[in-house]
Amino acid sequence: MTAAASESIKSRPHDALRDVRVECGYLESNPASVLYRSGKTIVLCTASVETTVPPWMAGRGKGWVTAEYNMLPGSTSPRKSRDRGGKVDGRTTEIQRLIGRSLRAVVDLEALGERSITVDCDVLQADGGTRTASITGGFIALSLAVTRLAATPLLDPPIVVADVLPRSVAAISVGVIGSDVVLDLDYQLDSAADVDMNVVMTGDGRFIEIQGTGEEATFDDDQLARMLALAKKGIRELTQKQVHAIGVQ
Amino acid sequence: MTAAASESIKSRPHDALRDVRVECGYLESNPASVLYRSGKTIVLCTASVETTVPPWMAGRGKGWVTAEYNMLPGSTSPRKSRDRGGKVDGRTTEIQRLIGRSLRAVVDLEALGERSITVDCDVLQADGGTRTASITGGFIALSLAVTRLAATPLLDPPIVVADVLPRSVAAISVGVIGSDVVLDLDYQLDSAADVDMNVVMTGDGRFIEIQGTGEEATFDDDQLARMLALAKKGIRELTQKQVHAIGVQ
Amino acid sequence: MTAAASESIKSRPHDALRDVRVECGYLESNPASVLYRSGKTIVLCTASVETTVPPWMAGRGKGWVTAEYNMLPGSTSPRKSRDRGGKVDGRTTEIQRLIGRSLRAVVDLEALGERSITVDCDVLQADGGTRTASITGGFIALSLAVTRLAATPLLDPPIVVADVLPRSVAAISVGVIGSDVVLDLDYQLDSAADVDMNVVMTGDGRFIEIQGTGEEATFDDDQLARMLALAKKGIRELTQKQVHAIGVQ
Amino acid sequence: MTAAASESIKSRPHDALRDVRVECGYLESNPASVLYRSGKTIVLCTASVETTVPPWMAGRGKGWVTAEYNMLPGSTSPRKSRDRGGKVDGRTTEIQRLIGRSLRAVVDLEALGERSITVDCDVLQADGGTRTASITGGFIALSLAVTRLAATPLLDPPIVVADVLPRSVAAISVGVIGSDVVLDLDYQLDSAADVDMNVVMTGDGRFIEIQGTGEEATFDDDQLARMLALAKKGIRELTQKQVHAIGVQ
Amino acid sequence: MTAAASESIKSRPHDALRDVRVECGYLESNPASVLYRSGKTIVLCTASVETTVPPWMAGRGKGWVTAEYNMLPGSTSPRKSRDRGGKVDGRTTEIQRLIGRSLRAVVDLEALGERSITVDCDVLQADGGTRTASITGGFIALSLAVTRLAATPLLDPPIVVADVLPRSVAAISVGVIGSDVVLDLDYQLDSAADVDMNVVMTGDGRFIEIQGTGEEATFDDDQLARMLALAKKGIRELTQKQVHAIGVQ
Amino acid sequence: MTAAASESIKSRPHDALRDVRVECGYLESNPASVLYRSGKTIVLCTASVETTVPPWMAGRGKGWVTAEYNMLPGSTSPRKSRDRGGKVDGRTTEIQRLIGRSLRAVVDLEALGERSITVDCDVLQADGGTRTASITGGFIALSLAVTRLAATPLLDPPIVVADVLPRSVAAISVGVIGSDVVLDLDYQLDSAADVDMNVVMTGDGRFIEIQGTGEEATFDDDQLARMLALAKKGIRELTQKQVHAIGVQ
Repeated sequence: MTAAASESIKSRPHDALRDVRVECGYLESNPASVLYRSGKTIVLCTASVETTVPPWMAGRGKGWVTAEYNMLPGSTSPRKSRDRGGKVDGRTTEIQRLIGRSLRAVVDLEALGERSITVDCDVLQADGGTRTASITGGFIALSLAVTRLAATPLLDPPIVVADVLPRSVAAISVGVIGSDVVLDLDYQLDSAADVDMNVVMTGDGRFIEIQGTGEEATFDDDQLARMLALAKKGIRELTQKQVHAIGVQ
Repeated sequence: MTAAASESIKSRPHDALRDVRVECGYLESNPASVLYRSGKTIVLCTASVETTVPPWMAGRGKGWVTAEYNMLPGSTSPRKSRDRGGKVDGRTTEIQRLIGRSLRAVVDLEALGERSITVDCDVLQADGGTRTASITGGFIALSLAVTRLAATPLLDPPIVVADVLPRSVAAISVGVIGSDVVLDLDYQLDSAADVDMNVVMTGDGRFIEIQGTGEEATFDDDQLARMLALAKKGIRELTQKQVHAIGVQ
Repeated sequence: MTAAASESIKSRPHDALRDVRVECGYLESNPASVLYRSGKTIVLCTASVETTVPPWMAGRGKGWVTAEYNMLPGSTSPRKSRDRGGKVDGRTTEIQRLIGRSLRAVVDLEALGERSITVDCDVLQADGGTRTASITGGFIALSLAVTRLAATPLLDPPIVVADVLPRSVAAISVGVIGSDVVLDLDYQLDSAADVDMNVVMTGDGRFIEIQGTGEEATFDDDQLARMLALAKKGIRELTQKQVHAIGVQ
Repeated sequence: MTAAASESIKSRPHDALRDVRVECGYLESNPASVLYRSGKTIVLCTASVETTVPPWMAGRGKGWVTAEYNMLPGSTSPRKSRDRGGKVDGRTTEIQRLIGRSLRAVVDLEALGERSITVDCDVLQADGGTRTASITGGFIALSLAVTRLAATPLLDPPIVVADVLPRSVAAISVGVIGSDVVLDLDYQLDSAADVDMNVVMTGDGRFIEIQGTGEEATFDDDQLARMLALAKKGIRELTQKQVHAIGVQ
Repeated sequence: MTAAASESIKSRPHDALRDVRVECGYLESNPASVLYRSGKTIVLCTASVETTVPPWMAGRGKGWVTAEYNMLPGSTSPRKSRDRGGKVDGRTTEIQRLIGRSLRAVVDLEALGERSITVDCDVLQADGGTRTASITGGFIALSLAVTRLAATPLLDPPIVVADVLPRSVAAISVGVIGSDVVLDLDYQLDSAADVDMNVVMTGDGRFIEIQGTGEEATFDDDQLARMLALAKKGIRELTQKQVHAIGVQ
Repeated sequence: MTAAASESIKSRPHDALRDVRVECGYLESNPASVLYRSGKTIVLCTASVETTVPPWMAGRGKGWVTAEYNMLPGSTSPRKSRDRGGKVDGRTTEIQRLIGRSLRAVVDLEALGERSITVDCDVLQADGGTRTASITGGFIALSLAVTRLAATPLLDPPIVVADVLPRSVAAISVGVIGSDVVLDLDYQLDSAADVDMNVVMTGDGRFIEIQGTGEEATFDDDQLARMLALAKKGIRELTQKQVHAIGVQ
């Protein structure tokens, strides 16, 4: 483990989240915009509603929710090149598919009606956990957009927020570092981790997605059990923060 | 559940693998070529060795293993368009990254020396489980390539197969269908599944990767435990088939 | 001439074809699939029918037949990179246009009705003559697809196989190597050839396409005449093999 | 003129800038990051230093400064699609070339030494004037990066800030709306303008770039003179704000 | 200043245009084709009319005019690579947007009706001033196309040339070289210029576009005034040449 | 056959070439530039010499000759879209490969030394036969470039024109229209032709390339013989025109 990772691992308890700060309505032009911070990681999540669906969805009376994920060039050091050569890199593709699936898992697309919501997650500063921050913050933006849509006068067909979003979703990472199981990996911890697992769960404690990867390492049943327990604790705390952020709107 | 899925689920026990057939040396021009069949799914896996590594790896005395995955247009009905518009689709990108990570997890890249091995997994016929078949069959092709490389006269530096490949890797899918937990999902079962999980493990029973996804559904601890138990059983059987296939070369 | 070419040229008479093996219905999911082998060259040809035509053909009561050609990365040594950078290489483009033109020359597109057939020719192993093998094997796949389509109950409008495919098509290469004119060039012979000619003909002995090229060499009338005579002999034999393969279905 | 433009034009004097707010060091990971706001327009400018130059510049002892400009999808309503199809749109290309030229005009590339600085201008919220805000804010980020570079211990070769940046640069828009000449066009005013002019000047009052365009309209010498006079006034005020922002670092 | 530039600057008075030659109807197949020469710069301008407009313009009863600009590989020495990699370079994009805007500024799109005109400007030989030559020559091609369209028997709806093109447009470059202000920069002069300005004006003396750039240099009010005066003189002369060329048709 | 084709076929004898006009040194900046006209077809051929070879050719003491072919948008009616979407169309690819092969067949690449020559063939006006015009005109440009290169003072290594270009090359089309065999097809004749054949030959009467295609038609031995005889006659006449054009330089 590097000195930096060693420093990072000591700075908070293994089972504690980083500080989370949520600024709803960050952009004046779009109330469904959220500046989500988890430690030094900063993600700007905006949800945009369109009154159409993709061609392959049309005419089924159902809506669609999709996500796009992007890291700004200045979000990392050294600078990250833009995805402009006609080729979105594999990691970006994987992450935005995960975000999209996770959000759709808590949306009742029929209750949404034939409308599309795109949740953009643009990472302003990256310090680990950008995909889980995007899911947790993205859900808040999605929720604000649905709430606002529901309040539109003469909306046809009308929608009920609780029908469209019967559940909430949040996500967190856990990892194995040496003999420890650690919650919410920042960049230094992530680099030091033998195993890295992202867990996506509903607010009422059911799994939506589990992605555990041993990077040049493997893990056993006991480590898996400890990681899952810690992830559940993190998700519970994040869910409370989401409820609070949306509630005070 | 559709009639077809219902048919499929009855045709073998919930905890049984589909028939696996392995043809090593399928292509005369490349001994490290494997035609891998799991039920109706057919994947041609070939491993090609180069004596260089990607620029960003050069000079570190380590090798590299990567994978490419592709479905032939005629492998599905209706026909699947080729990825020729300069854009590899997201699903393909995700799968080939998973295959590459899984194979690298059992390779000692330092023992390989500064050489690259590309494992191509081309799906001739797709009936579900193509990514897990690619990992399981891809490992056999990789193993044949390393064995052959080790046997090259005057190889400089020489390599020892057991050092380069200290472990084996195999992969299988499991899923939740209604109240059942089912091993090795074919296309019909996969379409009917509420939860779909791919498990990648070493031959000695440790996890490399777990990817569990609830498609418009969620799952709980109990279902997770049953899926993992079934996956372990499947991996044990696949490992035996790999040992047999490589051994008779 | 290299030793390998010299070896190759001695292994069969100058006017003899390589061994041809045809496996119809190779893929269970698509009866119009053919594994075509000519010596070590292996091409998987599949024909897929769609009930629409390209936009520029619509409303004319005519169908369309097109072909795609691709070499799998493991089909050659060294490994051939995939065409994924948004750019299909020039050789591939030329070959698939040739296959498409050759197949269309024996199809009555009006008799086919407003339907499209795509013939995919994926080269599993390449040892010279992949484009001619693709035409010869592609016609068999096309024929199986048309036969199957004609047998569809209640097809509207109905079709008659003999109207759609009044003729057959096959293709072969010939070349000049030193003072010899040689039939059916494998990779070694092709590399040694001064002149390389691909001939596409109908089963009843008329030319569809002649492409003769002197690679850093030229040829005269006499050599041309000898190449054409040999090509005709080869086409006659291939036509018999096609008739047999389709007939035993 | 629309009601909104009419509203906008009344909300401040014709010769007044919008409110400008500058947050230096906005991103903890990059001190050369500036959140620049002009009214509702928000641009995040970050300057990244590399110790190499592009190949075509190498070995000349000179550095290079370049800029990239991008609007985030959520910065506009309706949402703006990402430039991911391999094609940066023409407007974006034009703007980032303008920003790059404008910044280079005040840099002594020889005094910089063989180093590259990329200034990224990512628009978080767009309300007109994003290109001029990018230049004005981008210069602040550039200045912070050069100051920090100069302070690097044992820098080889060393640099002197005043040599590298002997001048400052700022930019502003002016326009003709009906019979008025107006400073600093927001989106509503820009839409209403018959003529739109962007002026880039040094802090000591010399022109770097003038781009005046009549959109389906033309302009005469008198209008040109009035626009230039107003632009100069705006540039003087912006220069003071830049000096203040950099000074308090 | 290089010897070549010094030579070039002496070969004609600072306030004189290069020789202009205009060949209308250069291509037999398209009467709206113009070979435009300004000194050694040769641009082939062709205007093509379509009876549709882009989708985003449809149904508004207005037409559209657009331009494409391209330099042939042999137009420069050394040879310029073709824009075939899926990426039109930034300079090309900027220039063709400028040409399009300039032409549209003198077209009454409503009087044109729902028709599109594309003006292609292909540079056969480049010796500076290709963008201004493209505008000046492109207007002639546009004018020929509109005249010809108006003469089409039974045109529905009919058009009147003077309504569609109430004004003409021409363009010229001016620059500052040392203490001189120079009209119509060829390649040598352009390379030597500290400031380069392109001016686009109507035939009746109003500005459409001004683009002045100090390349690693700046300019003041006096220089600006002298450049604009010289540009006006040049535009007046070019307008006369346009009138003559179109008139003798 | 259409009325236009019928008109065209009567306007000159079946065995006569269209008028050929050759302007050498058409571009002042490149003496190896040729404006080649065959009837209404106009091709600008320029040959550019570089003192390097492609990476894969380096260090072998041999040179390289390649060709690029392009049709200008205004060369056809209706206008042809530019190849700018990152995708060169199949026809263009085929044609430029043919031109390159044909030119290389008459070049001694070793005698050329490690130099590259690119022959650009840009079609200004297209009326059939653009590929054969490109070969015939391209050879003249190539010849001018080699002659000029040989005359370079102190050239190292020196070259001898007759060693580099021991032979000449020209190309012509022939076709079958009804019961006639016709030389040099213009657009109208090409559209009416059942069979279309392009023949590339050396000045001393040997074949370099034969490409005969029955478009929805076939042809027999007799038709083939008659087409080849007519092509030879055309090539002989074109060779004389080439000799004359190069000779008067």
